[in-house]
Amino acid sequence: MLRWLTAGESHGPELVAVLEGLPAGVPITRAGIQADLERRKLGYGRGARMKFEQDQLDFSGGVRHGLSMGSPIALRIGNTEWPKWVDVMSAEPVDPSRLAGARGAALTRPRPGHADLVGMQKYDFDEARPVLERASARETAARVALGAVARAFLGELGVTLVSHTLSIGPVRVPDQSPLPTPADVAALDADPLRCFDPVTSALMVAEVDDAHDTGDTLGGVVEVLAYGLPPGLGSYAQWDRKLDAQLAAALMGIQAIKGVEVGDGFATTKRRGSHAHDELVADEGLIARLSDKAGGIEGGMSTGTLLRVRAGMKPIATVPHALRTVDVATGEAAAAHHQRSDVCAVPAAGVVAEAMVALVLANAMLEKFGGDSVGETRRNLDAYLAAIPASLR
Amino acid sequence: MLRWLTAGESHGPELVAVLEGLPAGVPITRAGIQADLERRKLGYGRGARMKFEQDQLDFSGGVRHGLSMGSPIALRIGNTEWPKWVDVMSAEPVDPSRLAGARGAALTRPRPGHADLVGMQKYDFDEARPVLERASARETAARVALGAVARAFLGELGVTLVSHTLSIGPVRVPDQSPLPTPADVAALDADPLRCFDPVTSALMVAEVDDAHDTGDTLGGVVEVLAYGLPPGLGSYAQWDRKLDAQLAAALMGIQAIKGVEVGDGFATTKRRGSHAHDELVADEGLIARLSDKAGGIEGGMSTGTLLRVRAGMKPIATVPHALRTVDVATGEAAAAHHQRSDVCAVPAAGVVAEAMVALVLANAMLEKFGGDSVGETRRNLDAYLAAIPASLR
Amino acid sequence: MLRWLTAGESHGPELVAVLEGLPAGVPITRAGIQADLERRKLGYGRGARMKFEQDQLDFSGGVRHGLSMGSPIALRIGNTEWPKWVDVMSAEPVDPSRLAGARGAALTRPRPGHADLVGMQKYDFDEARPVLERASARETAARVALGAVARAFLGELGVTLVSHTLSIGPVRVPDQSPLPTPADVAALDADPLRCFDPVTSALMVAEVDDAHDTGDTLGGVVEVLAYGLPPGLGSYAQWDRKLDAQLAAALMGIQAIKGVEVGDGFATTKRRGSHAHDELVADEGLIARLSDKAGGIEGGMSTGTLLRVRAGMKPIATVPHALRTVDVATGEAAAAHHQRSDVCAVPAAGVVAEAMVALVLANAMLEKFGGDSVGETRRNLDAYLAAIPASLR
Amino acid sequence: MLRWLTAGESHGPELVAVLEGLPAGVPITRAGIQADLERRKLGYGRGARMKFEQDQLDFSGGVRHGLSMGSPIALRIGNTEWPKWVDVMSAEPVDPSRLAGARGAALTRPRPGHADLVGMQKYDFDEARPVLERASARETAARVALGAVARAFLGELGVTLVSHTLSIGPVRVPDQSPLPTPADVAALDADPLRCFDPVTSALMVAEVDDAHDTGDTLGGVVEVLAYGLPPGLGSYAQWDRKLDAQLAAALMGIQAIKGVEVGDGFATTKRRGSHAHDELVADEGLIARLSDKAGGIEGGMSTGTLLRVRAGMKPIATVPHALRTVDVATGEAAAAHHQRSDVCAVPAAGVVAEAMVALVLANAMLEKFGGDSVGETRRNLDAYLAAIPASLR
Repeated sequence: MLRWLTAGESHGPELVAVLEGLPAGVPITRAGIQADLERRKLGYGRGARMKFEQDQLDFSGGVRHGLSMGSPIALRIGNTEWPKWVDVMSAEPVDPSRLAGARGAALTRPRPGHADLVGMQKYDFDEARPVLERASARETAARVALGAVARAFLGELGVTLVSHTLSIGPVRVPDQSPLPTPADVAALDADPLRCFDPVTSALMVAEVDDAHDTGDTLGGVVEVLAYGLPPGLGSYAQWDRKLDAQLAAALMGIQAIKGVEVGDGFATTKRRGSHAHDELVADEGLIARLSDKAGGIEGGMSTGTLLRVRAGMKPIATVPHALRTVDVATGEAAAAHHQRSDVCAVPAAGVVAEAMVALVLANAMLEKFGGDSVGETRRNLDAYLAAIPASLR
Repeated sequence: MLRWLTAGESHGPELVAVLEGLPAGVPITRAGIQADLERRKLGYGRGARMKFEQDQLDFSGGVRHGLSMGSPIALRIGNTEWPKWVDVMSAEPVDPSRLAGARGAALTRPRPGHADLVGMQKYDFDEARPVLERASARETAARVALGAVARAFLGELGVTLVSHTLSIGPVRVPDQSPLPTPADVAALDADPLRCFDPVTSALMVAEVDDAHDTGDTLGGVVEVLAYGLPPGLGSYAQWDRKLDAQLAAALMGIQAIKGVEVGDGFATTKRRGSHAHDELVADEGLIARLSDKAGGIEGGMSTGTLLRVRAGMKPIATVPHALRTVDVATGEAAAAHHQRSDVCAVPAAGVVAEAMVALVLANAMLEKFGGDSVGETRRNLDAYLAAIPASLR
Repeated sequence: MLRWLTAGESHGPELVAVLEGLPAGVPITRAGIQADLERRKLGYGRGARMKFEQDQLDFSGGVRHGLSMGSPIALRIGNTEWPKWVDVMSAEPVDPSRLAGARGAALTRPRPGHADLVGMQKYDFDEARPVLERASARETAARVALGAVARAFLGELGVTLVSHTLSIGPVRVPDQSPLPTPADVAALDADPLRCFDPVTSALMVAEVDDAHDTGDTLGGVVEVLAYGLPPGLGSYAQWDRKLDAQLAAALMGIQAIKGVEVGDGFATTKRRGSHAHDELVADEGLIARLSDKAGGIEGGMSTGTLLRVRAGMKPIATVPHALRTVDVATGEAAAAHHQRSDVCAVPAAGVVAEAMVALVLANAMLEKFGGDSVGETRRNLDAYLAAIPASLR
Repeated sequence: MLRWLTAGESHGPELVAVLEGLPAGVPITRAGIQADLERRKLGYGRGARMKFEQDQLDFSGGVRHGLSMGSPIALRIGNTEWPKWVDVMSAEPVDPSRLAGARGAALTRPRPGHADLVGMQKYDFDEARPVLERASARETAARVALGAVARAFLGELGVTLVSHTLSIGPVRVPDQSPLPTPADVAALDADPLRCFDPVTSALMVAEVDDAHDTGDTLGGVVEVLAYGLPPGLGSYAQWDRKLDAQLAAALMGIQAIKGVEVGDGFATTKRRGSHAHDELVADEGLIARLSDKAGGIEGGMSTGTLLRVRAGMKPIATVPHALRTVDVATGEAAAAHHQRSDVCAVPAAGVVAEAMVALVLANAMLEKFGGDSVGETRRNLDAYLAAIPASLR
């Protein structure tokens, strides 16, 4: 069983990420994690923060000489802007006079679409600062770092993840477009919107430009693919063991995600049964599926074919053309606080979604195959695959 | 914290459902649970099994004189067809000669879209009987029973759930249609497809008829509404504490669900930010939201407005016009086993979704308000609401 | 990961036990579980209830033709006394006139040493009936049933458990007495107190007789041994992964247990370091331990030698010579309710402790070795053992 | 629900501790945590490391201006010795030549009583360095830091913890000695062995001196007391909800603990029932207990009287007079590695035990009373206490 927790505030000194339960012997490098952290900042339509803000990665524990040790892995992602926030976000009490500046002002105009108002109600705050600091999507950097670790483990087991952008606002990759493979990741990362279809990508760029020009923001849909999974991860035996249920939670638990699909998802609901399932045929002595409408999950289990899941992201809620709100200090109508200026974070959401999928799959691997060293897990996986009777392959 | 587990096979003697952690003093009646079990069988397009199969409800523990006791609630749902399956599903070894009939034959033609093939690979079975017995949607009766218990608890806290059918195959309720309220539940249950729009309902009936006539099956989309929630259930503080993440898992963990949405879900991904969020305005001294696009969840927390989530169901995978498969006993192409004859189970899925949402919300209530008697939980809830400053309401 | 829950009241219709996560293919028989249920009733000093009360075992799910199916295992243990309690413990409301008899009277004299008083405070009851019904040790029958299932699984992995009585009141087996082995279980079960030392057993019988004659009750200490464990179950990597921590919770979570020891336990605290640990020596090419003071656990992990844990049980709190209490209906001093008449339940506690240990070890096996069929788990275990380098064996 | 994880190695750059689920508004100061970290180093018989090693505390998240924010609390405890270990414990690969020194040498002589040998088997290491780095008791500093946070929360709810040393080796505080109260903590911390009985303390000092002179080590027993608990934490309703079970796991999960007792523990097993329980009497309109043999827990729940639990620690396994082992590089007999030179760590174990108890109790408070701000939790607690009927107090 893997457990993972993140901690840290958006403008605090650092984010902390802890992953517990990973076997020993997984190759983990600073460069590998740093590369994923950089990928999280990708995408046309990102604002200034992504440029000046550096993700300083430090290992606190769990990795020695490039390999996991079986002990908990703890990572820190330092915030290079911290010196500007030392007083505002100080853990220890500070003299109120030091909070006089703009950064220190109470945030009393809760932003629609954010956690601000409800967070204040729930935690009994009179301003939104403590809420938005934690609810901020900066926290996803910690997930991406852990996701990189999980991906390294999966890599040792022959599993590779790919994420790509399916849509930006109303602009969507045509149905039946080819899916990217692991060989396409570099090209995806080089695309302005991590879109695999160049024509669509150009349209997406135009859409972002237009939104930018009108002071607006955009959402979209990302898809994560997992190549190389064995059959039988997850289970139908209890509702919360279903792999799709776990993936749905992981994806919906990403900031701003409002919809999740497995395989063809909602499109499948419109089909008739005769055209909605992946028929089985004998193919040179093996059993093959004629399609992958199910997204590689049947009965809550990986089928051993391509896993495919999607997450739909709402437009960034901090809209330059500010949304209406109420100043809770005065009860008067006001314009919402404006904290960042991204137009679109969908490409980054793909990277975050990849991380979350990686963590779910890594856990599912351990649940099925156990193992305290990566060699042990792989040996168990290989033996399982070898033991599936020829008639069932 | 609530925990719930179900057990039992589709053709076994009974289903068992255990719910652990519910406060004492919740009014629980056989009639209330039985009514929900009956609602699970509703819907135009259900096959013969729904008619002849009775859900015999028994209390094993946790309820005394109509009230929960704080101890685990255990329910049994007997299978009236059990006498026909005594040998096939016997817990104890039986003489092979007793398995000679049709029911006892090995199921070697795994059905596409079901757990059959992967289940055999995963659990090392040479036929699909043990797989489909547990993976079957009959298990949802146990969830519905527990959901009725959770709903009784929520009812004591002022929360009421409503579910309805949004679409059957391609036939969908028009956008902006009025939402049903708790007052409409009887009407919904009386509608052939649990659809709140009569015109659409008639179209849905026609769609079901057509699918039936062509030997086909249908999926669709259901929506669950929760009225009366307080703000602040769930949290942004950790990914798995987000209420939407928990709801997504609960819904995606229902058999045949392939997509989940919160609020406007994927439709929101196509909007621009200026039109995608629920703006806040001062309204007679209170803070009001101008819309409910978010489905009553912001930052992973209930906002205190109407909660709205959706689940998309694929068409029933056991298609009368049988799908292609492979007989694993021979390696030859074959037609899939055909175990039931529903055309459409979407209305029932709404009832199951309601149950799952109820369980998640009941747990979220306990997480925030604690309580070992329903009076204690309600007192804590009331005190919380009363303590929210006037400026934040 | 295994999960297990029990439900049901002492005088309710039945106990329910659900075990979730067990691999398929474990041989499970009614006779095997029933035998353990019978063992739970063993022991000199038990009262009448143990004699007239029958444990009627039924399988609700998870087992087919003598083998586990990978789906949740649900068992019911019927209460043959239920007809006498139908009204008092009815799940549905009953006419108060039907509760007029002795069984139906409100229990307002909370028994010291029981959950009665605190349970009423916690759950807001005005009498103790709902408390004692669930807090009763009858619930341990459900644990024993699940423990029998876990033991069947462990048996397939080469692990055998033995429990025995170390002390009854002040009468204790001499230090350094030989430990029973799996070959001695029948003899243990035949001993009046499940004590492996015949001389001590005779003294224990005398102690029980004396307590009985003076209207008193007795506690004692039991020990559970696990033969055949591999090294490496549990982990030092996180506090709650330690096998000894898990065992301690499992044992302390048994009714009336007030102390837990691993290996020599508290005796070790009095030794100096030079005599407190199990030294390692080379023995014909293998590494051997010269002793087993640690009880087979080092660093929170099984060492692969004999596991040995102990639980200390307080005397039965329902003392014939009734303890002082207060009648909460009147505020007056009173004698505590007297619900049963065992003098000593220590031998039974050994059987229950065995069950709890079995469940913990079965879970630890799955955590380390995974597996969805017993063959898969065993294969992974064997491969692990084979892969330990010769230098480390 | 609280969750907490620690990470970090003994000679790594730092320990990391994350506590998730704490309400907002808990006063948390560096000084408070630092004070507990200093208390962990107390005790006569500690070696040099305790003196030169500084615990550098940093807040990574979750605390702002002296108050918890409801978000996860993350703490770091820097290792001032890290510069000496940069190469040996580097997360990234290092040139083998840099590992040539004593610190870098492979540890091939596993120490009896430690995790070394089993850890190597389990995680597939050929030397013990990665094992002992995490299994080391230095990790308890992270627990103590989190325990200080939990204690701050409990303090807001009127609960105060006290720990003291009951025995060192064979030297034990006499039975029936007075128990320390919160007013005695400073005196306890000033005592060389955190023993409340001065005469015994002097004997303990002599015992430590003697062990030191003979190159030996000592264990002992500590006791943790919790003042001010309400009745009803924990539950009898399910085995793992019992407060004593949770406390047992928390205490047994501390390095070197081999026994746990609640209240009088094993001594109770020797008493007869008529003298083993805490009788209830009416006392000026309230219900009082005549004794506290049960340690403040009945039926798995806090009774509202003094909670009292004990942990027994084995002697430090790194014995100056080195224990026998086998060098796994050669297969030859050898003397165990000798990594530290404490004679006795029992006083520190009391501080660690206090931390673990605090974490369990804080979680139990949240389980029963909920709350997202400390004011909310306290309000719910107060309302519960006020609502207990006069007849049940």
